[in-house]
Amino acid sequence: MRAVIFDLDGTLVDTVYAHTLAWWQVLAEADMPVPGWKVHRLIGMSGGLLTKAASHEIGRELSAAEAERLQARHGEVYKSLLPTRTPLPGALDLLRHLHESDIKFAIGTSGKRADAAASLEALNLPSDTIVVDRTAVERAKPEPDLFLACQERLGVRPAECYVVGDAVWDLLAARRAGMLSIGLLSGGYGEEELSRAGAYRVYHDPAELLSLIYQLGLRAS
Amino acid sequence: MRAVIFDLDGTLVDTVYAHTLAWWQVLAEADMPVPGWKVHRLIGMSGGLLTKAASHEIGRELSAAEAERLQARHGEVYKSLLPTRTPLPGALDLLRHLHESDIKFAIGTSGKRADAAASLEALNLPSDTIVVDRTAVERAKPEPDLFLACQERLGVRPAECYVVGDAVWDLLAARRAGMLSIGLLSGGYGEEELSRAGAYRVYHDPAELLSLIYQLGLRAS
Repeated sequence: MRAVIFDLDGTLVDTVYAHTLAWWQVLAEADMPVPGWKVHRLIGMSGGLLTKAASHEIGRELSAAEAERLQARHGEVYKSLLPTRTPLPGALDLLRHLHESDIKFAIGTSGKRADAAASLEALNLPSDTIVVDRTAVERAKPEPDLFLACQERLGVRPAECYVVGDAVWDLLAARRAGMLSIGLLSGGYGEEELSRAGAYRVYHDPAELLSLIYQLGLRAS
Repeated sequence: MRAVIFDLDGTLVDTVYAHTLAWWQVLAEADMPVPGWKVHRLIGMSGGLLTKAASHEIGRELSAAEAERLQARHGEVYKSLLPTRTPLPGALDLLRHLHESDIKFAIGTSGKRADAAASLEALNLPSDTIVVDRTAVERAKPEPDLFLACQERLGVRPAECYVVGDAVWDLLAARRAGMLSIGLLSGGYGEEELSRAGAYRVYHDPAELLSLIYQLGLRAS
């Protein structure tokens, strides 16, 4: 195994609960109330798919313009709920370890560049880190495009990549990309939800992953 | 089975994500950062136990005054994040069904009366509903006191009561009270987390519980 492809929100930065509450509020404002726990389970899909899932949930079709407006409003509410971003425990150490060990890594996020920027900044990444965001691919998770774009830019084969993510959408996208995946509980899913969605291993957070990284058989490039 | 004792937050009203984000923010402000997913798993304990668990998490003791101040601050932030309360799908119908069917029910919440008041109001309860809150007992969940106080006031035996809750703290308190329990996913736990903590059945939310209520063998008093 030669490379690790990370999800961003809930995997490296502690943002899932603010994302959830922001979407919950935006959908309620738009008279499309979706209960919090169901919103939580939609985080990590693209905003477009999320609004589609929410419209299915309440049984009403949304126009493209409505979906776009909801996503813009989510960006506003999210920023007001979470003006600063906090890396998850061990995230900075894990990325530093991979960098210093010459193990390739990349980040693939369903977020748009503007939403992701503050989170990426909080991670203090090496300047040459490969980041693929929503705007770079046609279809976000659970489609495999984001992870395949990371893999191509890393110059490795899919079978040589681990995907690390907190949501079932990461794990499904990994399977479809032909990659093994690792689940983290730091996005608030239960352990079995992640195992059932295909996670090869489940750790609490980046800190636990780092402490057990020998279990992954990664090698330097 | 003759009675149903409900938890409030996450079981009848959709408040868990606001509670989580409020505690997350208050703990971060106090320089006691605890990741969101760990805060989420503490919701439903008393505020006192929650601050104790958080202080354990960061490895620093809190004075009683500090713990009290954090709880007061949580009340403020929570109210600002969630000015109005939303019943979970089916909550009003379920309570109405029990009332009209002469099946006894009560509510036992770890929240203090002021925090719980707005949630109770949103449920539009019959005026004689038995509600036992944090202030009525010495120790909140996962101690069994809240549920035992409900059971005594309902005039039934513990073995005749179901507890319905969304958090493992409800399910643990139910076991200690000698009651069967039912888990709801509407607080954001995974299904297996609730089953393993002792839930006899797990439903999505009050609406699903109501649609399958024949599975519970409840009878009128």
